[in-house]
This record gives sequence, C-alpha cells and structure tokens, in this order.
Amino acid sequence: MGFFSGSMFETMNMLSTSDHTSVVSINLFVTLLCACIVIGHLLEENRWMNESITALIIGVGTGVVILLISGGKSSHLMVFSEDLFFIYLLPPIIFNAGFQVKKKQFFRNFMTIMLFGAVGTLISFIIISLGMAFSLALVSSSLFYFIYEYPLSTIFAATDSVCTLQVLNQDETPLLYSLVFGEGVVNDATSVVLFNAVQNFDLSHINTTIAFQLVGNFIYLFITSTVLGVVAGLLSAYIIKKLYFGRHSTDREVAIMMLMAYLSYMLAELFYLSGILTVFFCGIVMSHYTWHNVTENSRVTTKHTFATLSFVAEIFIFLYVGMDALDIEKWKVVSDSPKTSISVSATLLGLVLVARAAFVFPLSFLSNLTKKSPYEKIDFKQQITIWWAGLMRGAVSMALAYNQFTRAGHTQERGNAMMITSTITVVLFSTVVFGLLTKPLVRFLMPSSKQLTSMISSESLTPNSFIVPLLGEGQDSVAELFTGNGQVSEAPEGGRNVARPSSLRMLLTKPTRTVHYYWRKFDDAFMRPVFGGRGFVPYVPGSPTERNVDN
Amino acid sequence: MGFFSGSMFETMNMLSTSDHTSVVSINLFVTLLCACIVIGHLLEENRWMNESITALIIGVGTGVVILLISGGKSSHLMVFSEDLFFIYLLPPIIFNAGFQVKKKQFFRNFMTIMLFGAVGTLISFIIISLGMAFSLALVSSSLFYFIYEYPLSTIFAATDSVCTLQVLNQDETPLLYSLVFGEGVVNDATSVVLFNAVQNFDLSHINTTIAFQLVGNFIYLFITSTVLGVVAGLLSAYIIKKLYFGRHSTDREVAIMMLMAYLSYMLAELFYLSGILTVFFCGIVMSHYTWHNVTENSRVTTKHTFATLSFVAEIFIFLYVGMDALDIEKWKVVSDSPKTSISVSATLLGLVLVARAAFVFPLSFLSNLTKKSPYEKIDFKQQITIWWAGLMRGAVSMALAYNQFTRAGHTQERGNAMMITSTITVVLFSTVVFGLLTKPLVRFLMPSSKQLTSMISSESLTPNSFIVPLLGEGQDSVAELFTGNGQVSEAPEGGRNVARPSSLRMLLTKPTRTVHYYWRKFDDAFMRPVFGGRGFVPYVPGSPTERNVDN
Repeated sequence: MGFFSGSMFETMNMLSTSDHTSVVSINLFVTLLCACIVIGHLLEENRWMNESITALIIGVGTGVVILLISGGKSSHLMVFSEDLFFIYLLPPIIFNAGFQVKKKQFFRNFMTIMLFGAVGTLISFIIISLGMAFSLALVSSSLFYFIYEYPLSTIFAATDSVCTLQVLNQDETPLLYSLVFGEGVVNDATSVVLFNAVQNFDLSHINTTIAFQLVGNFIYLFITSTVLGVVAGLLSAYIIKKLYFGRHSTDREVAIMMLMAYLSYMLAELFYLSGILTVFFCGIVMSHYTWHNVTENSRVTTKHTFATLSFVAEIFIFLYVGMDALDIEKWKVVSDSPKTSISVSATLLGLVLVARAAFVFPLSFLSNLTKKSPYEKIDFKQQITIWWAGLMRGAVSMALAYNQFTRAGHTQERGNAMMITSTITVVLFSTVVFGLLTKPLVRFLMPSSKQLTSMISSESLTPNSFIVPLLGEGQDSVAELFTGNGQVSEAPEGGRNVARPSSLRMLLTKPTRTVHYYWRKFDDAFMRPVFGGRGFVPYVPGSPTERNVDN
Repeated sequence: MGFFSGSMFETMNMLSTSDHTSVVSINLFVTLLCACIVIGHLLEENRWMNESITALIIGVGTGVVILLISGGKSSHLMVFSEDLFFIYLLPPIIFNAGFQVKKKQFFRNFMTIMLFGAVGTLISFIIISLGMAFSLALVSSSLFYFIYEYPLSTIFAATDSVCTLQVLNQDETPLLYSLVFGEGVVNDATSVVLFNAVQNFDLSHINTTIAFQLVGNFIYLFITSTVLGVVAGLLSAYIIKKLYFGRHSTDREVAIMMLMAYLSYMLAELFYLSGILTVFFCGIVMSHYTWHNVTENSRVTTKHTFATLSFVAEIFIFLYVGMDALDIEKWKVVSDSPKTSISVSATLLGLVLVARAAFVFPLSFLSNLTKKSPYEKIDFKQQITIWWAGLMRGAVSMALAYNQFTRAGHTQERGNAMMITSTITVVLFSTVVFGLLTKPLVRFLMPSSKQLTSMISSESLTPNSFIVPLLGEGQDSVAELFTGNGQVSEAPEGGRNVARPSSLRMLLTKPTRTVHYYWRKFDDAFMRPVFGGRGFVPYVPGSPTERNVDN
C-alpha cells in the first residue's frame, strides 16, 4: 500500500482545496439524504413524526457533530444560499404541488383562497409590523429602526407553502389542504408586492392613491404570473401534441415537460413576477392537457419523477435548514444578550399566532356568508385547523431572512445577527413543535375526517357514483397508475357527465357548478381540440390506456 | 403601464446584477435546450445529423449572436466550468450507459475492452506525446516546454465516451458499441494514472521500477473503482429489498436509486479514484439487482428518468461547448499568429488519427489470435469502424483542457490560449466532421449491419430462440416496457436455460460461456437470494409483472 500512497498524496495536494471541500460536502449531503429517506421510511407508521422533522433533527445533529469536530469553529460545510434555494429547490416542489393538486377542489374554493392569500396576508403583515415596532421599542431602541429598514414582517406574514405540504394530507382533508396550500401559493404574490411596497413607499403616510397602487400592483402581478404559467403549460401541450414526440422517444417528452416547467419559473423570475404562482399554474395546466398527450410510459415517468424531485428537494431543504441552524458566528454575536434574543423570538412567535388568528376567523366568517349550503361552510373546528396548519415558518422564511440580513454593505452586524438567530429560533420551534402537534390535532378535531370532508365537499359524493362504473368499464389501467400516493388527474368525470339529468338539477342550485359547466363546454369545444387532454389524444398502437379510452 | 413601471424599475435596481445575469443565462440555456430537443426531433429521420451536432451548431450560432449583441466583447454568458461538467453533467451520462448497457455483450468482450482501454491508450499517449514534442520543437521553441509541463497528450489520448454514445447505436452494432464505449470507460482510469505519472515522474528516464509502478497504479485504481461501484450498487439492492420501500411510496425507491448512484460517483471523486469507472459499474449492478427489487412503476420511472437525465446532460454539454467555442479573449491572443495556431491544431488532429490507428489494428489482430471461432473475430471493416468511431474528442477533452490551461498562477498567457484554442478547434472539427461521417460510414461498411452483428455475436442467435416462447408465456408486460429505445435488462435467459441440453453442448466449445455458466450458478445460489434480481423479488399484489413472473 505504501507503494501507492506517495502518488495519492501528490494527487491530493494537486487538487485545489476548495474543489475538494465541495466534493466532501456533496458526499455528506447525499449520504444524509439517503439516511433521511431510510429513517423516514422506518418511521412511516409513527403518528407524530414526519419526514421534514426527521430531516431537521438529523441536520441539527450533523451540525453539532461538525461543530465538535471543528472544535467550535464552524458548524456547516455550506453557507446557506438563497440562490440554491430559490433557483433549484423551490421550483420542483411548487410545480409538483400544482401538478398533483385536485383541480376541482382548488378552483371551487378559489375565492376563499384569494381572500386568505391576499387580504389575510395583508392583515397579518399589519399586525406583525405594529406588534414588532411596539415590542422592539420596549426592548431595545437600537433595534427599532429595523422595522422601517427591513421588511421583517413580510417574511413572517406569509405561510410557508413547503411546510403545509408536510402536515396536511390532500387525500384525508382535501378542503383544508386546498385552502391552506392555496393560500401559501397566492400569498407569494402578496409578499412580493408588500416587499416592494415597504422598500418604495413611506408606509407611515398611507393615502388612498398608494393603497390603490398597491392593489393595482397585486392584481398586475397575480394576473401576469398566472398568465405566464398558463401560456407555458399550453405551449408544452401544443408542442407535444403537434410534434408527437412519443413516436421516436419517450425521453424527449419527459425532457420537454421538465424543461418547460422550469423555464416558466425562471421566466417569471426574469420579469420580476411571482415564480411560485407561475410554476404552480403551469403545473395545473400541464396535468390537465400536456400529461394526456404523452405516451403511457411518459405519464408514469413524469408523475413519479416530479414527485421524487419534490420529495428530495423538501428533505434537502429541511436538512439544510437544520445544519445551518447552528450558524455559530451569528449565535456568538448575540450570546452576550440572551434575554433580548429570547424575547424577540418569543414576540415574533406570539405575533405570528395572533396575526394568523386575526384573519383566519373573520375571513372564514365572511366566506361562510357567501355560501348557502351548510356543507360548504367552514366550521369552527376546521377554522382552528386552518389557523394551526398555517403557523409554521420554514425554509422560505429562512431564505428570505438570509437574503435580507446577510447582504453586503450592512454595518449593523449585531442587529443582523439578532434577526437571523430569531428567524432560526422561530423556524425551528414552529416546524418541530407545531409540526409535531398538527397530525394529532387534525385527528382530534376531525376524528372521522374522511367522512366529514366527503360531506363538506358537496361534489365528492356525486362523482364517486360515476367513478365506480367508469372504472369497471375500462379505465382500470389509469386507475392502477393512481393507486400510489398523490393523484395526478381529476376523477374521471368528463363534460358529458355534467350534462346528465341528475347533474342538471344540481346545476341550478350551485353557482360554482355553473362556472364549471361552462368551462367544460369551452374546454371541450375550443381548448382540448387544440391542446389535447383526456379523450383528445391521438391513437397510439400498443399503449394500453389509449386503447381503453378509444373502446 | 406607467403606473407600475416606477416600482418595477426600483425592483430591478434592488436586485444585484450578478443574480440577474445568472437568471438570464439559465433562461437562455433552458430555452436553447428546448429548441435543441424540438429540432433534434424534427431531424430524427435525417441520415447525417445527430442531436449532438445540432446542439453544437445551435451553441455556436448563439455564441455568434451574443458576440454581435455585445459588440465583440463577450461570446458567452457562463464561463466553462469543469465543476459543472464533472460533478453534475458527466455522472448521469455514464451511469445511464452502465444501466442500459448489454451486460452479456460487455463482459464477453471484456478482455478486448481492457486491451484497448489500457494498452491502447498508453500507445496513443506515447505517439501523441512524441509527435507533439517533435512538431512543436519545429514550429515554435517557446511552446516546447508545454510537453513536459502539461499533460496535453493525456487529454487527447483518451476517447471521449460521451461522443461515442452519440454515433454508435447499441441495437444496430452491439459488438462495436460495447468495444468502443467500453474502451472509453476503461481509459478514464488509464488517463488518471497517466495524468498523475506525467506530474510525478520524469518520463524521459523510464526504468522498469517506474513502469511496474504505473502498471500497479492502474490495477489498483481499476480494482478499487470497480469494487466501490459494485458495493454501492449491491448496497442499494440490499436496502431496497430488505426495507421494501414500495409498500409506502414509489418516490423513495426512485430517490434512493438516484442518490446512491450519484453517491458512488462522488465517493470515487472523494478518494481520487476513477468516478467514471465506479458509476459505470454501479449502473451495471443496479440494472442487474436493484432494478428488479422495485415496483413496476419505479422500474418504468427509473429507466426513463435516467435516460432523460443523460439525454439532457448530453445536449447541455454540446450546447455549452458550442457556446464556449468563441471564447473571444483566447482567440484574440492567438490571432497574431494564425499559422502557428492552425498548424498546432492540424498536427493534433493528425496525431490523433495516426495514434488511434497505431493501436486499433495491432490490438485487434492480437485479440483475434485468442478467438477460435471466425464469427468472434473483429474483421477489417469493423476495425476501421472502431478506429473511426473513437476519433472524436469532445466535452471531456474540453473540460480537461480548461482545467489544465486556465488555472490560476500560470503566466504563460499566450501558450495557454494557444492550447485552449487548439483544443476547441480539434473538438469542433472532430465532433462535426467525424460525427457527420460516422453514420454513413457505418452504413457503407456494414450495409446489412443487423444481420452481420447477429452472426458475429455468437450468442445472439441462441437466446433469440428462447425469447420468443418466453415472451409468449407471460413476460409481455416486461417486453412492452422495452419497446422504446435502449434495453434495461438482458434478454430473459435465466440460469435454468443455460443448463438445457442444447446449451450444454455449446458450453464445451465456448470458454466465455463457461465463465458465464459458473457466474450464473454463483449468482443464483448466493447473490440473488441476498440482493434480489429477476425471479427473486417479493410478491407484490397488484403489480402485473410480479404476477407474471410468479405464474
């Protein structure tokens, strides 16, 4: 062995140190990701844990080990990078959520979601701003200016959409999932608007013009981002339908779908729109049109690939946040004033709790006023769950905090460190404590949640009666694909089913169904012939699904 | 619109310029990737073009456009990064090649592949070194020292394994594909050894000790890299078989397979082994064991995901090389001496042609001496194809050249620029010209290549007679998966088939079959019961393949 060691040692010196550090950290991260997946699998039956908490704990544990090995000097191998987070990790998670979301549930509750996402976030922002200004003025006058200079409140006003995905199950509580997650998507646009507003306007002198300008900005951002996502999705559907990639290679279809989805997000970032909104709507459109235009193999592949990428990105984020929580330089700076640090964190947590309560209950009441049927209303137990499930602040908050408080050119070292450590404390506490308690809480408040939600969502009884005979007829290969977790497409209710006599009666009593009915008519008459979709795909010999659809 | 433009403009200024440049370049790259895929699809029937040449041409075109827009200042948005190439783009390509390679074909020709990869690369290296030393001494004495200081010859001695994947088709010419691509994988280890040797030894005073040391280094690197890949593959098979991930989620299986494969490559890099060899053997082991342990959906997903990732990475590389070819600073430096630049490039190209001929024909002769059956021998037409198909130098050469000649601390600006522009010239010329001519050449030399190769590969007639009845029995769902491009598993010949009377007769005349027979016995008795594999997977209710296998 000594024979080779000489040359090996030379090689080691030859390679630059920085290169090798990144190789070491990639090895460590990939190993930890594998460990998280295996441990998450073993803890699957556990009623308290979920994958994100496991990853967070493993991350913190690894951070401690690195801290001990390095002799208290460093606790992380990589510095938290917002670029890594916003450019590579976030898009697959949000896209997959849009791709697998139950579209009907989402659009039926669209007005409530918009109410929560836009008005709710604004209320939350105002309460957290005022509360922090008040309490920081009490605690330390030197920190007071942070309120004006840094939009800390915009960071904590918004629900972390990645976290809500972890605690609510789309199949168990579809209504709550669509409300809380939908809010998380919409409030990204609100955050962008508020963030710019804090930077550009003097909020202490608000007048009607500025208020209208803010509303106009929000509407502009929301519409442009949505349109961009929809156009990207439709373009992918059109290209794949026209060129018929599957003829030569499945790989091209999969590649085009992935690249177009990613392109929509990056284009939104390029034009300073809300990338989250764009890629979410791109996912919805792709699952409605594009996914039906590709071959059977591509469908299975895209469904599972998107889910896997999202799954790995989520674990990566929590692992990363956990490892970065022990950012020792920042903690050292604040260690001389532990009281201030703790009180800032506690105030933030308290304000997040109060601010969310202050909009969830009133807005739910407002939303209930517009609903006629008692089954469509959000009852008190559900309101509590919505309030609780949206409390977590996770990686999105971390990334925004790092983005704000570690920028070059800021001399207020102590204040910045204080803000980052407070954010870390809030993120760790809310993710672990609120996260651990959410599963039991949902079970306690809604003991038979499956029964309840099927009563609440007025439509879920009707399509079920269609699904069974349709499955029996010949859709079994499609149904087989969906026995795994997550649902790509809607339940197979086509436009023809809506027009049935039994549905017509319901149409008169339900306004949302009317919108849905005309959308279906429009979809079948104009959209599907151009962009494809279920029942409008060309016949592919040898593909079992196509054969079944044609029969 | 003016209403919003004020705030938009503020936002633009707010974001730092470097962030936005990377967003712009990601957008451009993703758009170009989509364009390459669509154009590649449209040119599918074209007998001259292939996807890599399309990507290269689009890349050069984009480079020209950027050059014109920037007013001749810059031609690329990203600087060529070896890290991006070696850490992210190369692993999926090589892994997928190992995952989809025809294992029987590969191992039957293993000795010939080793001969080409190890001895052949050494011969090529010596010829190119001597030739360059001679010609550079003639052209310019100031460039002469490059021969000793920089291992330019190691860059050009090795076949580019990514390029060979593009021009040879595994299904049309399995023997040639396995020989040329296998050589490309093995010579990565040779290159690492030669590279270190050039750095550490004075090659002008070679003695027996140093020669033995080099041989020892090669054997050490080859064995450790292979063992690491095999262990990583077996570990993934064992984990998935024991923990039975599919019970809860398909995504975990897919994630574990991807992460373990990537981990094997990164571990090899960590220990300064040959990552290419490691990840290639990891792919072979995973396709033999792990792939059979996962659910039906995971199989379809992994097969297509690996292929898609490899496909996108390949296009990305060629696009990247094309865009970077107009590295205007480097060209400006050498523009005062166009004669020297052209003569260096021409000499390199000529040496590559001669050096490859100098080992392909003698080594093929040697290899033929060991084969008894005339059908197993490599005939002259095939030798010409092997020689021609391995001539291309592509992204691997580019990355190594950039790695060598753009390092910090080198003051010989002109010499470095000359080496890089020469490399670019050779890469562009060989990829476009040799690449364009390979398809027609293969068709010209082997007009009925399918018939020929089935005669040459002595075994392909025998298993075919098994495949047909087996397919009829109940393997049709497996067969359906493989009607696309590429083949994941071997033809379904199990150990039991080898023991049939007709096979026993062949066993006595073919020594390679004996090795294969004992491997099968060992595999069935010890390996498969532990690591899974075809016929040793647990019964999964609802999975069509499992049902068929059990029947």
